[in-house]
Amino acid sequence: MSGHLRFERAAHDARVGLLTLSNPGKHNAISVAMWRELREIAAGLDAMTPTLHAVIVRGEAHEFAAGADIEEFPDFRFDRDRLRAYHEGQVAPALQALRATDVPLIAQIEGACVGGGLEIAACCDLRIAQHGARFGVPIAKLGFPMAPAELAVVLAVAGRDGAAEFLLEARLIDAPTALQRGLVQRVVADTAAEALATAGRIAALPASVARANKRSLRQLLAGGPSAAELEAHFGYANSAVHREGIAAFNERRPPNFETEDPS
Amino acid sequence: MSGHLRFERAAHDARVGLLTLSNPGKHNAISVAMWRELREIAAGLDAMTPTLHAVIVRGEAHEFAAGADIEEFPDFRFDRDRLRAYHEGQVAPALQALRATDVPLIAQIEGACVGGGLEIAACCDLRIAQHGARFGVPIAKLGFPMAPAELAVVLAVAGRDGAAEFLLEARLIDAPTALQRGLVQRVVADTAAEALATAGRIAALPASVARANKRSLRQLLAGGPSAAELEAHFGYANSAVHREGIAAFNERRPPNFETEDPS
Amino acid sequence: MSGHLRFERAAHDARVGLLTLSNPGKHNAISVAMWRELREIAAGLDAMTPTLHAVIVRGEAHEFAAGADIEEFPDFRFDRDRLRAYHEGQVAPALQALRATDVPLIAQIEGACVGGGLEIAACCDLRIAQHGARFGVPIAKLGFPMAPAELAVVLAVAGRDGAAEFLLEARLIDAPTALQRGLVQRVVADTAAEALATAGRIAALPASVARANKRSLRQLLAGGPSAAELEAHFGYANSAVHREGIAAFNERRPPNFETEDPS
Repeated sequence: MSGHLRFERAAHDARVGLLTLSNPGKHNAISVAMWRELREIAAGLDAMTPTLHAVIVRGEAHEFAAGADIEEFPDFRFDRDRLRAYHEGQVAPALQALRATDVPLIAQIEGACVGGGLEIAACCDLRIAQHGARFGVPIAKLGFPMAPAELAVVLAVAGRDGAAEFLLEARLIDAPTALQRGLVQRVVADTAAEALATAGRIAALPASVARANKRSLRQLLAGGPSAAELEAHFGYANSAVHREGIAAFNERRPPNFETEDPS
Repeated sequence: MSGHLRFERAAHDARVGLLTLSNPGKHNAISVAMWRELREIAAGLDAMTPTLHAVIVRGEAHEFAAGADIEEFPDFRFDRDRLRAYHEGQVAPALQALRATDVPLIAQIEGACVGGGLEIAACCDLRIAQHGARFGVPIAKLGFPMAPAELAVVLAVAGRDGAAEFLLEARLIDAPTALQRGLVQRVVADTAAEALATAGRIAALPASVARANKRSLRQLLAGGPSAAELEAHFGYANSAVHREGIAAFNERRPPNFETEDPS
Repeated sequence: MSGHLRFERAAHDARVGLLTLSNPGKHNAISVAMWRELREIAAGLDAMTPTLHAVIVRGEAHEFAAGADIEEFPDFRFDRDRLRAYHEGQVAPALQALRATDVPLIAQIEGACVGGGLEIAACCDLRIAQHGARFGVPIAKLGFPMAPAELAVVLAVAGRDGAAEFLLEARLIDAPTALQRGLVQRVVADTAAEALATAGRIAALPASVARANKRSLRQLLAGGPSAAELEAHFGYANSAVHREGIAAFNERRPPNFETEDPS
């Protein structure tokens, strides 16, 4: 099995994690092993809070990820149960783990952001693309339709007819088109610098607040929050960061969130 | 009753259908008879697969459709039951039939794409507009609000506040604005050529895959897929196009989908 | 307690209401008293129909609103029950009253449209911004997350990842970016003139039709309409404005909606 994921802290800011997709010579195509690693790493992010404030998701060698590792496909795809186990037991849980983390995720997108790569980017909170990045899901050329759980994450960022266009035409779109359609938030020349600056802005704010905001967004998108979730939400009333933020504003000084209480 | 619909195969590519709205002298305004024809033709598209890969929906004489045929309105609109029978028994089922087909639909939009015309375009998967096209639902000028089932299809492409703007201001927007808002996917000079090229790209890919993708999108938007739909989805595992697509990729040759098995 | 709201009719068009947020020296920051006034005024708008056709929501002195009045915060925010009573008993009902009115609302946005200001603008049907307007929810700098009911109204206009960006980065975006993302419908130099012209276009059309359209939109977004709501919708069949609008079109003359029957 080829390829792997690497997780490390940023050299100049330990509050920022770097999650790198790496499959050299294959445009970081995502192997079954890599989906499994992605699931494990994503599932472990919440336990790293509060020292981890944000994670940049990126690919090795100026390429995000070109999709799944198709050389592996003949091993398991032509049997219905094994095919379903791949999509629902490997890919979907990895994407779900990314969506489930309360740690802010920033996709740093260069080169191909295609198929499984686009799915991973769609699970991030922010997407920052280089001018030459390209986006799509051209799997009809491989003779198969998109798995519903994967289509759901693309649908959330591309919309009904954007997703239809990706799938029916199997065409790639460029970064300006992706920006115009809201598929990415920013198109810049130096994605690494912009992703780090963005992570730095997020890291300068209380991690507990970012986590609470991500939870509320997820609850609202799931039709909530429930009564219990709502009650829990307002538990921050007496927190140190809440008191400090408001005190600093009214005293016209910058807040000091360094001593944040874990929550 | 005036106006009619025409369905034919494209001259140079029999896999592509052409569905033409025609009501000469009335900007292809859609009469009751035309809504009925639209419903029948749309309901029959799935039976034409797999030889039918895509349908271009367009209007006669470089005009999409200016709305309903208002000369007919005094005949039935001022009685509540007959009014409701028109909107819910004629218009909504025609739109529903368009949304229900698994055949990819491309709207080729020139001139007015207004009222019922916009509703029909909104039921297509892709919308390709000419620079001079204009979009809107100015029915407040006719003294009546939009029927809920019709508003639902416009809402799906224009969003909450885009739909509100169409209805409350009764203003038309131009093609660049429609593109900026995601109401259309492309604005081009030669819509006929771009629609045919798009249909050709879709037709070159397996029709069974396009149908499966449209089904999954529809299921997701309805809150699914159900367990049975999910089980059915993965039934393509051992299909010829699946085997051929993956084999071709790994053998670094173009796939040959000509011998597609019907499904 | 500082600040107040002002409601008046436009000087040259009594069909247009002007709702002005005013908190001088504080960029129209919204105090608890102002949230209460907003709720009362918004709840009273429907009773002003049919003489009231549209309301322009704006801020004093070329500034929309910079958010809540943070000087008041130490009084009540550090106790969970009082904090929750503020967000759920004061702010959310005011926003809900804005969303619940059937009168068309136009946000005229200059300067800061931030925090609670953005929430109010998000409850309007149309948002018209000046080139220098700026948008955001930088409350993480104050050390607290967004209340779920307030996040819901921002989510409806900014989308999942737009809302995430606002909250996680606590950055402001400018008017062109807001337009590109669909957060506002128009960016113009003279917002007051454009808001009045827009209100005038709306006011020239039947108020009963606008109300019916707003009701249908709200019903669709809530998963409806119900059978009773659908039956009520078609009650306009025999109305004077419906007969007049269609008669005028077919007689090729402008409609006269002045004698509209209240409904």
